[in-house]
Amino acid sequence: MTAKENLRPGGRSARVQASVHKAVRTLLNAMDRSEVTIPLIATEAGVTPSTIYRRWGDLQELLADVAVERLRPDMQPVDTGSAKGDLQAWAEQYAEEMSSGPGREMIRDVLAAQDNANACKCHAFTREQMELIGVRAAERGESFPSADVLMDRVVAPILYGVLFGEAPTSRRVDGLVADVMAERPAAIPRQRASAPKSA
Amino acid sequence: MTAKENLRPGGRSARVQASVHKAVRTLLNAMDRSEVTIPLIATEAGVTPSTIYRRWGDLQELLADVAVERLRPDMQPVDTGSAKGDLQAWAEQYAEEMSSGPGREMIRDVLAAQDNANACKCHAFTREQMELIGVRAAERGESFPSADVLMDRVVAPILYGVLFGEAPTSRRVDGLVADVMAERPAAIPRQRASAPKSA
Repeated sequence: MTAKENLRPGGRSARVQASVHKAVRTLLNAMDRSEVTIPLIATEAGVTPSTIYRRWGDLQELLADVAVERLRPDMQPVDTGSAKGDLQAWAEQYAEEMSSGPGREMIRDVLAAQDNANACKCHAFTREQMELIGVRAAERGESFPSADVLMDRVVAPILYGVLFGEAPTSRRVDGLVADVMAERPAAIPRQRASAPKSA
Repeated sequence: MTAKENLRPGGRSARVQASVHKAVRTLLNAMDRSEVTIPLIATEAGVTPSTIYRRWGDLQELLADVAVERLRPDMQPVDTGSAKGDLQAWAEQYAEEMSSGPGREMIRDVLAAQDNANACKCHAFTREQMELIGVRAAERGESFPSADVLMDRVVAPILYGVLFGEAPTSRRVDGLVADVMAERPAAIPRQRASAPKSA
């Protein structure tokens, strides 16, 4: 069960959603998440529990819905003047945010929901950021990997580390970025008349 | 809170663990996971609920503990005669198992626990499989990427896909394997007197 998308801004439905999301964030700040219940959220939001059940199905879906909103990027990737610099700055910030306590909790909430629509939304948010960096690179005339390659080579290893291993250090993140960027000249040799070294 | 490791086989503690794990698996097969509770598990296992609370802390930790045991590989990677073949066969099976309903559920259980010791265990199981393929490759005199490179280039993208996107197809998995293996000659050029193509 997924919360309805494309709510009319300011409509009753949008106001209920905003109020319930705010109630969840307030409660998560004030108490342990295992103590947060739908009746508590309903009281805090000023709606009936059945409004919440009808709209989100269960607590886990609601928590996932709130988490994914918090994971939505609130800024464009920083423009450092070069594609590699942009990617590096973005990846370091991403690794830091995802490794933080709240970051891990949000990923866990998104993944705990049965419905994986929210997990796919997270993927789409991140991929968009990669595309934005790519558009800027193209405008500067820089060669840059595709968003899919960046998801595989930078994003996936960072998230894997956050979830299954150790928080990736900035040195580790820089290594991932350097590796994927180092392959750029080699990635298009057949389109060139001569190989870079023998030219 | 993590269940004690290195139980004396056949000891009381090991018998309790085996019985509780079995009860969890039986109940998960018989009913929806949202209906499974510690009192039900205790009844099925023939122990008191407090035994379970004392040992595992809460339901989520117990489910994670059971899930990680099910994720423990029960066989060595298939020997296909070549390192690339071994890796490909292993990766296809891994992607298939992790994308399946029970596979996703197990990953979710492991990640839902507050304690990430179980998530790290999953990582260690997988890394061991990579090392086993590497040892075989070395015995055959084949060049093969390190286990860390394989975790980044094959395992992380597969799991990222399972969790955040679409189940990786076998074509996609083969692409990841082909990419990481294609770089092998280029990875050791300085140790050679002449480049492969100009020789």
